[in-house]
Amino acid sequence: MSTAGQVIKCKAAIAWAPKQPLSIEDIEVAPPQKGEVRIKVIASGVCHTDQYTLSGQDSEGVFPVILGHEGGGIVESVGEGVTSVQPGDHVIPLYIPECRNCKFCKSGKTNLCSIVRETQGAGLMPDHTSRFTCKGQKIFHYMGTSTFSEYTVCLEISVAKVTPQAPLDKVCLLGCGITTGYGAALKTAQVTPGSTVAVFGLGGVGLSVVQGCRTAGAARIIAIDLNPTKYPLAQKMGATEFLNPSDVPAGLTLQQHIVNLTDGGVDYSFECIGNVNVMRTALECTHKGWGVSTIIGVAGAGQEIATRPFQLVTGRTWKGSAFGGYKGRSELPGLVDDYLNKKLDIDSFVTHTLKLDEINRGFDLMHSGESIRAVVLF
Amino acid sequence: MSTAGQVIKCKAAIAWAPKQPLSIEDIEVAPPQKGEVRIKVIASGVCHTDQYTLSGQDSEGVFPVILGHEGGGIVESVGEGVTSVQPGDHVIPLYIPECRNCKFCKSGKTNLCSIVRETQGAGLMPDHTSRFTCKGQKIFHYMGTSTFSEYTVCLEISVAKVTPQAPLDKVCLLGCGITTGYGAALKTAQVTPGSTVAVFGLGGVGLSVVQGCRTAGAARIIAIDLNPTKYPLAQKMGATEFLNPSDVPAGLTLQQHIVNLTDGGVDYSFECIGNVNVMRTALECTHKGWGVSTIIGVAGAGQEIATRPFQLVTGRTWKGSAFGGYKGRSELPGLVDDYLNKKLDIDSFVTHTLKLDEINRGFDLMHSGESIRAVVLF
Repeated sequence: MSTAGQVIKCKAAIAWAPKQPLSIEDIEVAPPQKGEVRIKVIASGVCHTDQYTLSGQDSEGVFPVILGHEGGGIVESVGEGVTSVQPGDHVIPLYIPECRNCKFCKSGKTNLCSIVRETQGAGLMPDHTSRFTCKGQKIFHYMGTSTFSEYTVCLEISVAKVTPQAPLDKVCLLGCGITTGYGAALKTAQVTPGSTVAVFGLGGVGLSVVQGCRTAGAARIIAIDLNPTKYPLAQKMGATEFLNPSDVPAGLTLQQHIVNLTDGGVDYSFECIGNVNVMRTALECTHKGWGVSTIIGVAGAGQEIATRPFQLVTGRTWKGSAFGGYKGRSELPGLVDDYLNKKLDIDSFVTHTLKLDEINRGFDLMHSGESIRAVVLF
Repeated sequence: MSTAGQVIKCKAAIAWAPKQPLSIEDIEVAPPQKGEVRIKVIASGVCHTDQYTLSGQDSEGVFPVILGHEGGGIVESVGEGVTSVQPGDHVIPLYIPECRNCKFCKSGKTNLCSIVRETQGAGLMPDHTSRFTCKGQKIFHYMGTSTFSEYTVCLEISVAKVTPQAPLDKVCLLGCGITTGYGAALKTAQVTPGSTVAVFGLGGVGLSVVQGCRTAGAARIIAIDLNPTKYPLAQKMGATEFLNPSDVPAGLTLQQHIVNLTDGGVDYSFECIGNVNVMRTALECTHKGWGVSTIIGVAGAGQEIATRPFQLVTGRTWKGSAFGGYKGRSELPGLVDDYLNKKLDIDSFVTHTLKLDEINRGFDLMHSGESIRAVVLF
């Protein structure tokens, strides 16, 4: 019997308050409204951004909320006016929508569609309401995706339709980390063949930067992390050497050490941690005249980056990347194809799979550095 | 009688110590050594960078020194092995050389030839000596140019040969300010037709940015300065509107005001002052998704720029420019042609001319904001 038009009762992991474990609850998911899509979630990665919001550091964080933004699912029903997807389609929810109509989408210069930024940031659908309730209480949406639920509701403009041939328990990771890192190398920094690169932080994003740099033809890819257990996977992704910041010779800063190792600095660097001091290091280890440093990590609220302006006047460029610069609806299907054609490795990132009621273990594994990605299978 | 090979006695303006007026003295200028060129200086602009060093803020400043780096002259004699210029050639000394052989020159990505950086920064020729003496004392070179002297010695790689048709009392300004601003717009930021631009600071560099933006086809050029007497010349250079930071409505920062005036921010901004707070404002007034802010001004020693990394992650780019990104020997001749073909206005920048013994007035005029450029005629 079709559930279209009906409230669906299902399980979800709810974050009732910051710094608390998620709680598996029975919730109600209202039918999709105009321009909305209800999705049966098949899989969802657990990402540092979920952890960041759960930690209470995210100034936009609202509670109680259903976290999760790295999901894959199947459309259960669609609201009025939805034409680009239909029930049964396989989709990846997008935390950056692509409306194709706003100033940003039409600029041809950015993927940062801002059409629903305010309500999405407030944890609501564009009509300022939520589709989730639990025990009679309104539960907020998260990043327009809320994939830690058996069913979720997203905007039509916030889902990328992908081929049903792709396993959703893998390509769900294209919803955030892999796409973010891979695109930062290929689309934002536009790493050139033969270049030298430094990647700071070897989580899912950093490893994906490494993979993107290899795809771009970088000659030297220096992978940097305090945790040496990350090196083997970095090597598999294309890293050519490894650097532990603990091993920097006495009297040298990390940036000086890298400058020395690379005859003047790297051509490209990437910060994949969210540490403002590392962001400075990443800029200052690039080569005078042409170094490009790209910030990907999300820093704590209110934290600032700093450097001497001389670093920029002498030819370095400081930039940033969100979701790898990819327009989700237009470009994720291509990444899925690259995965199916074995050009893009996703499988190596899935180090753990969990059931929904084990989701807090996913946070623990991430926190300990044990996992690259734990994927919740619904 | 040829002076080649002889020590030349002539007048120069010497900075004996920081914060002191320049002193006109009789000096001796030794013959050019291997790879060097001795130049009879015809004209030299007085620039803020001279003032900066004279103020004692320049951490590389050495005294006593002959300042001046915006000159034009005629080759008097050449040292051993010099082949690209000969006596009688008209030249513009370059504070950034172009050796055509180093990693930087061959990269195709930067104009920052670094082959003589250390000795030039130390106020010496590459053999670690000076060509200037006064009263038996060694006088340091400055920026490899030292144009506040009737005769100076530069490296062959530090002079751009220009057509003798060009008046040296005008094209001398291509030795610094005009080239710096014009190129920041055209080569570094690569301003696009129809774009919106904010220019902070309307000295010679800022006005040249305005001119470069007009040449690039910018649609809106917002010229920003606390001194409204700069606006008419900015308008002549192509500014379409003017903004006095004193007039920002209460409760708004300057960046918020500019964002409001421009439906989300400017496409390009330029800092032409050397104020680290203005550098931040310039970045933060650019448009989310694609704004590019270029730092041109030189900040005080040790000062730092800061912003929230979110500004970059949401698509802004922070960069800098030195000498407009132009390779002096290869590209200044083209700018001279543009001047002769009336594509590039230099004449409007020369607001005052002075004799060498009036040079301190040139600093006063600059300090008071009365001049754009005072040019010393020898």
